[in-house]
Amino acid sequence: MAEPIASESPRRRGRRRAGADTRGALLEAARAEFGERGFDGATVRRIAERAGVDAAMVNHWFGGKEQLFVAALDFPIDIATILDRVLPGPPEELGARIIRTFLGVWDATGGAPLGTLIRSVASHETAAGMMREFVGTALAQRLVRPVAPDRHELRAALCGSQIIGLGMIRYVLRLEPIASAGHDEVVSATAPTLQRYLTGPLD
Amino acid sequence: MAEPIASESPRRRGRRRAGADTRGALLEAARAEFGERGFDGATVRRIAERAGVDAAMVNHWFGGKEQLFVAALDFPIDIATILDRVLPGPPEELGARIIRTFLGVWDATGGAPLGTLIRSVASHETAAGMMREFVGTALAQRLVRPVAPDRHELRAALCGSQIIGLGMIRYVLRLEPIASAGHDEVVSATAPTLQRYLTGPLD
Repeated sequence: MAEPIASESPRRRGRRRAGADTRGALLEAARAEFGERGFDGATVRRIAERAGVDAAMVNHWFGGKEQLFVAALDFPIDIATILDRVLPGPPEELGARIIRTFLGVWDATGGAPLGTLIRSVASHETAAGMMREFVGTALAQRLVRPVAPDRHELRAALCGSQIIGLGMIRYVLRLEPIASAGHDEVVSATAPTLQRYLTGPLD
Repeated sequence: MAEPIASESPRRRGRRRAGADTRGALLEAARAEFGERGFDGATVRRIAERAGVDAAMVNHWFGGKEQLFVAALDFPIDIATILDRVLPGPPEELGARIIRTFLGVWDATGGAPLGTLIRSVASHETAAGMMREFVGTALAQRLVRPVAPDRHELRAALCGSQIIGLGMIRYVLRLEPIASAGHDEVVSATAPTLQRYLTGPLD
């Protein structure tokens, strides 16, 4: 990890932001910018301007635009870590690795943050736009396209539907027997669905 | 349909409720009662008491406790109608009929009410409890158990996960290509998932 960069832009109020202030201001600015312009339209320069900090702070605190975007979604894990966990291994078991990673990540949070996320996605067009970008860009381009170039956007959206729905049932509705089921049982039941959406015939 | 019953209980304020008032008061009382006690614990008598009307009004306006419960969920269609649409036909096409009915019902609303429903389920334990009852009782007992007595609660929860997730992607996130896809395309892609959850092997 790089050391914090000392040359932050001065704030309007005339003092330097502490590190946590900079990070928080960037997250807030990113949510506004991505919400208004979408992932492709948003620029790191404009997000930094809105936050009143130097653009280098985005790379320093987040590593880049994509990581800032995912951080702004308030996911408990960043996409680079997700990809590191699910990509290695046989393509025909990708569905199982996705479900297992999903359960590991959200079980560790107790599930409450997923409720917050889904509520904001259902309430605010900003959050909905960010989630759309996450599934449509990050998932479709980075995760699905390499294993299934054919119809990768439809495949990613279908995977998204099963994953989001599983999250609703297990963590938000807490509906039994899925709420308390072990990972092996959930993977056995749902991984074949994801695998078909990823690499199987769709009609 | 029966004519409106004239002998409503007098309200505290000393005038009779108009029909729409009675119906609205029952819905409000039902949401509170089902939220506190769940579907099985709630009684028609107590709901009517909370609404300040005669218990006969529940049957008159809704046809019974189950229909009142579904009305209180603010679904655009009642469960009796859903069952009438999806049950007749070959069991091996039940998954396709469920998806087709789901799309028909929610497309007709433009999808916005599903956003409201999901938001309230993610925000209020009351609404979450009602939705749990809907999937766990109505779906599991009435729709799934007749075709799959084995593990019908798990099968219903799995179906619920794919259906709710599909609703999130199509109507709340409005993610393409699923948001604008024709019914045939969505049915081809997702009905095999439901069919496996209903009647296929789960491990």
